[in-house]
Amino acid sequence: MNKPVNLTAKQFRLREYPVHAVNANTWHMTHEAPEAPLEGQLIVRNQWLSVDPGMRGWITPKRSYIPPVQPGEVMRAFGVAEVIQSNVAGFKPGDIVTGFTGVQTLGPVDAQMVRKIDLRYASAQQYLSGLGMTGYTAYFGLLDVGKPQAGQTVVVSAAAGAVGAIVCQIAKIKGCKVIGIAGGPDKTRYLKETLGLDAAIDYKTGDVSEALKSAAPDGIDLYFDNVGGDILDAVLMQINRHARIVVCGGISQYLDVEKVRGPANYLQLIAQSATMQGFTMRDYMNRVPEAFMALAGWHAKGQVKFRDHVLQGIESFPQAFDMLFSGANQGKLLIQLDTGVA
Amino acid sequence: MNKPVNLTAKQFRLREYPVHAVNANTWHMTHEAPEAPLEGQLIVRNQWLSVDPGMRGWITPKRSYIPPVQPGEVMRAFGVAEVIQSNVAGFKPGDIVTGFTGVQTLGPVDAQMVRKIDLRYASAQQYLSGLGMTGYTAYFGLLDVGKPQAGQTVVVSAAAGAVGAIVCQIAKIKGCKVIGIAGGPDKTRYLKETLGLDAAIDYKTGDVSEALKSAAPDGIDLYFDNVGGDILDAVLMQINRHARIVVCGGISQYLDVEKVRGPANYLQLIAQSATMQGFTMRDYMNRVPEAFMALAGWHAKGQVKFRDHVLQGIESFPQAFDMLFSGANQGKLLIQLDTGVA
Repeated sequence: MNKPVNLTAKQFRLREYPVHAVNANTWHMTHEAPEAPLEGQLIVRNQWLSVDPGMRGWITPKRSYIPPVQPGEVMRAFGVAEVIQSNVAGFKPGDIVTGFTGVQTLGPVDAQMVRKIDLRYASAQQYLSGLGMTGYTAYFGLLDVGKPQAGQTVVVSAAAGAVGAIVCQIAKIKGCKVIGIAGGPDKTRYLKETLGLDAAIDYKTGDVSEALKSAAPDGIDLYFDNVGGDILDAVLMQINRHARIVVCGGISQYLDVEKVRGPANYLQLIAQSATMQGFTMRDYMNRVPEAFMALAGWHAKGQVKFRDHVLQGIESFPQAFDMLFSGANQGKLLIQLDTGVA
Repeated sequence: MNKPVNLTAKQFRLREYPVHAVNANTWHMTHEAPEAPLEGQLIVRNQWLSVDPGMRGWITPKRSYIPPVQPGEVMRAFGVAEVIQSNVAGFKPGDIVTGFTGVQTLGPVDAQMVRKIDLRYASAQQYLSGLGMTGYTAYFGLLDVGKPQAGQTVVVSAAAGAVGAIVCQIAKIKGCKVIGIAGGPDKTRYLKETLGLDAAIDYKTGDVSEALKSAAPDGIDLYFDNVGGDILDAVLMQINRHARIVVCGGISQYLDVEKVRGPANYLQLIAQSATMQGFTMRDYMNRVPEAFMALAGWHAKGQVKFRDHVLQGIESFPQAFDMLFSGANQGKLLIQLDTGVA
């Protein structure tokens, strides 16, 4: 059962589920050359990989919207890849696909987990960031789940992050007053000066509750939450009647998945007849073209800017993953693979 | 400024806000005879008072859907009362009103806080229980917020309580599989044998998670929550995709209002694209006639049973309030006042 080894083929596999932070025992790199594709499989060469907070949930052995990665398996990741070999009708060598292509330079993927894309419409990089799942998540989460109305006050946490920054910009397009929460002066400056938000709050300095009272004196109508924890609790105390809280993520609670702290102020949902709603992109896969066209149009007109934080080479994966939690990235985290290597 | 004293007029006033459980310093009884009604006021004699978990929120100095009772004021309560004196057009002595009539035998009320009722349609007692706010809360919370569909699995906590028992029965009428959670064998027997639920779980004995897995092997589509805490967390781990959680109350968290524990499993809302929504009756006051007629119809046909737990005399108020938290009551808690006394 030994698989052929090829030093140019590299995979990051899950070694063991982390209980707290991801650590040296979480991943291990292997060098296994792919064999011929099995029934329903393609062999692909990844060009770009996406590194997302949701990955923390995929290495948590707990019920979720998708089964966790099993120890020993290649880590799950979104990517853009070129088909090298195909065992599946409708895919041929040279096709470019996106989907779950895994943290690997070269290897097998299940054809049902990817779809073909056309690089005439957007670059491979864009298909993983603003014009990909990141953009779609922002689009459907804000518009479909959050239902913003012009003139309403929208608060976004992790606002300088991949999804958050796009949410902020769409909310501005829709005529909302938009307040972004992020960590550090570089990020708040980006939110104010580059994205033109109405206010930006640095949660690392000062009191978020006080800052929210000052920035949103009329209360909060819509909160797009990527972080949970204290910030969610602070927002709950300032929501307006019939407010909507879109639960997109809870990164403050991902480091110790055994001891998640729920929102202590959740009973404000009663007091304000408010709604807290979660979602994932699987609810919207049939509407991807709508999101793609809207985002591409806004991007072309300069109304939505994308910002990517690009690392080079598959070896950067553990470092990239850590950045999600330290907040060291500025924008959507991507890994560009050296596709020049066979 | 001394008010006239009349030993037959009795009021329970808030002495100080309780931080934890209500205690000997929370209430004090006074004997102040009402003066002539001020502008916009009526003098009423209470016939029945309603004792509800929501009262805990009214004596918590925290933002809510209604301002808290101020120390020194008569405790807020729903009641049915007879108008004795009126300073307001549209109200005359002898009219029967319901609304915020306060924990008092006799005294002033703000006419805007009450409405006239007709005892030909329902008894005074029913206007405070199944055909009053309790019934309306169950009706709108389940049907409007929860949106049950026939064949779905509905779980109700505090299922033998005032609101919960009516929610269970309406869910059965709507063709749902209904599982009630309550404390103790008397209550679970009532749920199974009298209300005909599909299953009843005693949270005081055994593991609620395991009991839910056994009673709801296909998962939970709708959860009507009156309790919060561990039961809410157990349910969250077993909700189905697109589940709705109706947040009606959180009585497990009312005893220490400074240290509410939020639902640690709330990120299941993301995994299951689920919704948690709060409400209060103020969202539905314009639709009260609809709920009244539906409930009265079901009650007349024997499809919805009401069960009241009646205490006698205003002196029983502190004891009645405590019963809400000990769970000693069986059904809707009401106080019948001795209206024979002048």
